[in-house]
Amino acid sequence: MSDLRKDPITGRWVIIATERAKRPQDFPRDAPALTTAFDPFLEGNEDKTPPEILAYREPHTHPNKPGWRVRVVPNKFPALKIEGTLDKRGEGIYDLMHGVGAHEVIIECPHLETSMARLPVENIREVLWVYRDRLVDLKRDPRLVHGLVFKNKGAAAGASLAHSHSQLIVTPVVPISVWEEMTGALEFYNYRGRCIYCDIMQQELATGTRIVLDTPAFVVFCPFAARFPFECWIMPKHHSSHFENIPRQSIEELGSVLKNVLGKLELALDDPPYNYIIHTAPFDTKEIPHYHWHIEIIPRLTRIAGFEWGSGFYINTVLPEKAAAFLREVDTEASHGQLTA
Amino acid sequence: MSDLRKDPITGRWVIIATERAKRPQDFPRDAPALTTAFDPFLEGNEDKTPPEILAYREPHTHPNKPGWRVRVVPNKFPALKIEGTLDKRGEGIYDLMHGVGAHEVIIECPHLETSMARLPVENIREVLWVYRDRLVDLKRDPRLVHGLVFKNKGAAAGASLAHSHSQLIVTPVVPISVWEEMTGALEFYNYRGRCIYCDIMQQELATGTRIVLDTPAFVVFCPFAARFPFECWIMPKHHSSHFENIPRQSIEELGSVLKNVLGKLELALDDPPYNYIIHTAPFDTKEIPHYHWHIEIIPRLTRIAGFEWGSGFYINTVLPEKAAAFLREVDTEASHGQLTA
Repeated sequence: MSDLRKDPITGRWVIIATERAKRPQDFPRDAPALTTAFDPFLEGNEDKTPPEILAYREPHTHPNKPGWRVRVVPNKFPALKIEGTLDKRGEGIYDLMHGVGAHEVIIECPHLETSMARLPVENIREVLWVYRDRLVDLKRDPRLVHGLVFKNKGAAAGASLAHSHSQLIVTPVVPISVWEEMTGALEFYNYRGRCIYCDIMQQELATGTRIVLDTPAFVVFCPFAARFPFECWIMPKHHSSHFENIPRQSIEELGSVLKNVLGKLELALDDPPYNYIIHTAPFDTKEIPHYHWHIEIIPRLTRIAGFEWGSGFYINTVLPEKAAAFLREVDTEASHGQLTA
Repeated sequence: MSDLRKDPITGRWVIIATERAKRPQDFPRDAPALTTAFDPFLEGNEDKTPPEILAYREPHTHPNKPGWRVRVVPNKFPALKIEGTLDKRGEGIYDLMHGVGAHEVIIECPHLETSMARLPVENIREVLWVYRDRLVDLKRDPRLVHGLVFKNKGAAAGASLAHSHSQLIVTPVVPISVWEEMTGALEFYNYRGRCIYCDIMQQELATGTRIVLDTPAFVVFCPFAARFPFECWIMPKHHSSHFENIPRQSIEELGSVLKNVLGKLELALDDPPYNYIIHTAPFDTKEIPHYHWHIEIIPRLTRIAGFEWGSGFYINTVLPEKAAAFLREVDTEASHGQLTA
């Protein structure tokens, strides 16, 4: 079982996942190219993954057999496991607990497709439904307080398999980055009585220069203080703190928006490695007025060096206004053939 | 001129360095291997860098000519520049200012050596003296509030040149990571009346399991909540908040300690890419009782993926106790030939 350890200075938690342990000499020096020679996520290879937790299936098909459209399985090398007790304890100045939680893989399609943007929009909508269903289910476990849905696309973004997939890690403590966002947003709310994300969105829509996409229920923009070239945030126009409370109609629209934005990034940056992360409020609150769920997409074009590690400062070489203008112009419809090929 | 922009939610600053701007298609997809074909840092190539700011030289040699041992030049592609005014201003909800600051390169030796651990210890001591001298000098500029000394070793750690060098970025705002450390340490101090780093060090010395090196004035250990496999912290035993206040005798000892630890990491992990960062208090305070300068060394063996970006959580696959035990055993003396070859 892994342990969660807390840095006593910053309050940041670390997962010490000894079951993933390697000998020092075993670390790969460079990101290996993602092989597609064998694909454990392929329809027909259901026995090559741990048994499924959830799958959207065709009628009359059976668990862990072909016939699924989107499938969720436990991570084969989980950072956290659902079994056991937290056993929170101290060691002198230090705090630690058992690595209780969930680490799941969302296999987004039954065939080998590496790009989510090339999946049919109905498929992407079902992936979003799966995110919601898994969060709603795991939220009922009183030991767990936060769920992080994320995607690693490409080796440089941390993916180890090419087949389009995303992951969900549910933790027994609120991650420090979520905590920092919540705290910053609460301070603003206490001072102004408004949601800072709503204010940001309003200013972005008024200014227009950083907008990538504007649909009835969503805005996509390059944030004013983007850390990375071509970083994009997808934000729902209607205030809501919890992604899992998303209405059905918004999921439909979000599917189209996500396909469009990822398609734009792929065309603009020649199929870049990227991460996206759903930022959503912890499980232990109901809808709150000061936090606003959103999705952050970060193309991984540049390397993080010592300055970034030491300072939390980022150096971005592309003006967010320039990136947004560029992405606005990218026409994924005109390149439909390329994206669906 | 670059701009500093502040994320209104978290308070994190970003440097938008447009002079380094690239077209989207210009981003390198993988870290290029570090070429040594042409080395602008070599003795004799002084005209291939901007004019020197400081150099430790042999008697009767001239600035920007051969005869130096350690040399400091402005970064050719600086993130921040010393000229101009801050011009702090708002744009609606957003804050920004001009990118005033310093971005310097410390060339650690006149010949082509890629490994700091292989430099003679006297050479390393002079590099440390240069760090101190530059901090003391830049501290006098009232616009600047913090100096971050760091090293990127190897392409995967963000280096673009193979010749052993480090960098100094001095900023007009306190970086958020420094702020978080200072705040956490102050909270502990307010509650317990002691420096948290002193307490940590005391517990580490008493436990012993995470100690890598223990010398009269310094302790090197793998931190309890290490984010990365083989992460090591070098901490002075005598409490001090500012690196630049280091006494002469400690610099002598720190030179040996740094050479030893970097040598251990190189031997243990087969010359890994790494960063080190000097964590030190901002310029605008005198010695303070709650902060304690130290050096964090992070081998860059694993990739940062979506989970880490979204959560601030890290997954470390090597027990810090195991890493420390391994590093304790590595004998850099026995491998003297290899390290000095």
